[in-house]
Amino acid sequence: MKLKDLGEFNFINRISESIRSSGRVVKGIGDDAAVLEHTKNKYLLFTTDMLIEGKHFHKRDKAELVGRKSLSCSISDIAAMGGVPRFAVISIGFPGYLDLKYADKLYKGIKKVAERFKVDLVGGDTVSSGKIVINIALTGEVEKENLILRSGAKENDAIFITGNIGGSIKSRHLNFTPRLKEARILVKNFKINSMIDISDGLLADLGHILEESDKGAVICEKAVSVSKDATGFDSAIRDGEDFELIFTLPERYADKLESMWPFKTRLSRIGRVLNGSKGFTLVRKNGKSGKINPAGFTHF
Amino acid sequence: MKLKDLGEFNFINRISESIRSSGRVVKGIGDDAAVLEHTKNKYLLFTTDMLIEGKHFHKRDKAELVGRKSLSCSISDIAAMGGVPRFAVISIGFPGYLDLKYADKLYKGIKKVAERFKVDLVGGDTVSSGKIVINIALTGEVEKENLILRSGAKENDAIFITGNIGGSIKSRHLNFTPRLKEARILVKNFKINSMIDISDGLLADLGHILEESDKGAVICEKAVSVSKDATGFDSAIRDGEDFELIFTLPERYADKLESMWPFKTRLSRIGRVLNGSKGFTLVRKNGKSGKINPAGFTHF
Repeated sequence: MKLKDLGEFNFINRISESIRSSGRVVKGIGDDAAVLEHTKNKYLLFTTDMLIEGKHFHKRDKAELVGRKSLSCSISDIAAMGGVPRFAVISIGFPGYLDLKYADKLYKGIKKVAERFKVDLVGGDTVSSGKIVINIALTGEVEKENLILRSGAKENDAIFITGNIGGSIKSRHLNFTPRLKEARILVKNFKINSMIDISDGLLADLGHILEESDKGAVICEKAVSVSKDATGFDSAIRDGEDFELIFTLPERYADKLESMWPFKTRLSRIGRVLNGSKGFTLVRKNGKSGKINPAGFTHF
Repeated sequence: MKLKDLGEFNFINRISESIRSSGRVVKGIGDDAAVLEHTKNKYLLFTTDMLIEGKHFHKRDKAELVGRKSLSCSISDIAAMGGVPRFAVISIGFPGYLDLKYADKLYKGIKKVAERFKVDLVGGDTVSSGKIVINIALTGEVEKENLILRSGAKENDAIFITGNIGGSIKSRHLNFTPRLKEARILVKNFKINSMIDISDGLLADLGHILEESDKGAVICEKAVSVSKDATGFDSAIRDGEDFELIFTLPERYADKLESMWPFKTRLSRIGRVLNGSKGFTLVRKNGKSGKINPAGFTHF
């Protein structure tokens, strides 16, 4: 059997099932970041992301934006846990023929994001490689009471997303802003039950929340704010790398959240969490509804 | 200017000079691992290592050994700081055509090392890549009084190395044992002034200690235990990836250390730290001595 036949998710599951962890691990593989015992009041968060030329960015993309993206992805993971980022180590594989200016600009992009989000760049490894490879490992911290997992969604929770989704491949995947300040306001002021960032697509990532929480959901097409870059709703909900937040909270707080939302970033209430036996339903603009497969295939 | 003309060390220096760090960073780029404020009595250590197919291992190498090496390199970094490893996150780039068995064996190698050294594997990222790329980021902890930096070597310190050096490319670079238990015994029982692991070669890595400590050294050829895999002393001191320890401690403790050394791993007292103006001297087996350049070129 080849790896491509198994798929990334299944391979990660395959690994994680066989790993034994010590009592210091609160949550290992299977959320946006690992959650580890740290101090009396805080957990340590830990995440890693690898970006490869030709897949996550192209040689023609501006080096500074590639650097920006590489650290922003990891900050987005920490934000989705409710935490704040702290320390990053960066490994880079560079072809020897690469111009020094490219490498300098890439680091400039990383440094700008690090300064903006108060991340300390504390270590690195530079190796020679045929293609450019960037790996960022990032730690963070979260107050124990503010930790949000994928697995906490409750029946009748309202489902919200930030921003507009879809078509990020046109440009936004390189210059998005991780929703750190939004996530921190949310976890400090509301009873958020579950949260994830959109890296695999709205449908797939909401699917992760539902699967981990053993719940279903109903989503309203008309409530989802689709980006002008997307080719329509049906592709927008499958497009990856939006790096927006999906989160759920008890319905009774939803109005208050909408009325006090202090950011320019759009906030959309797109649906509701159902009990686990009811699956994943989409209500179309014309009022028709049907089951939908979070893996990405609609059945109507 | 191309990256290959600048070289890895100079590029890392170039980056680190421009990075501003917060007060939480005790030691950033420029040692085996970053040292970060953590708890009242302990520092957090943080390191990252990227291994690329064709450079750090070959497709023909056994997958389990490649996995073993990838985590062992990082544990060696934590050991060289005097600490113990804790949590690892692993990013892997795999070609889609790769057989699942290869991936499983690679993870098996990582897991075996993790279990032996009590490392929790807490997260991962799997992406598709033309060549196999493995990145491991590892945290560790060290009691504040046991932290050892490269920069602490003192005049007249005795210089020691563990194991035999040179020629690790023949096989040892894939199946070495990181010197964690040796390093822990050292830092808990002796006043170790400086330590590093040998990744770039004895000469280059001792050179890092001397440069960071602003010291010179004299090394005796006959005291250096050269591996049977090496093609001779002159290449052995330049060969990389021994993953042995180099450390220095005050001369008055050297005899005691040699007499109580409890391990099978060889311990060799190879020289002495000199004041900074005396450079780097090699005493040949025939008694002749001359200056040597830690970058790897002998002047006699």
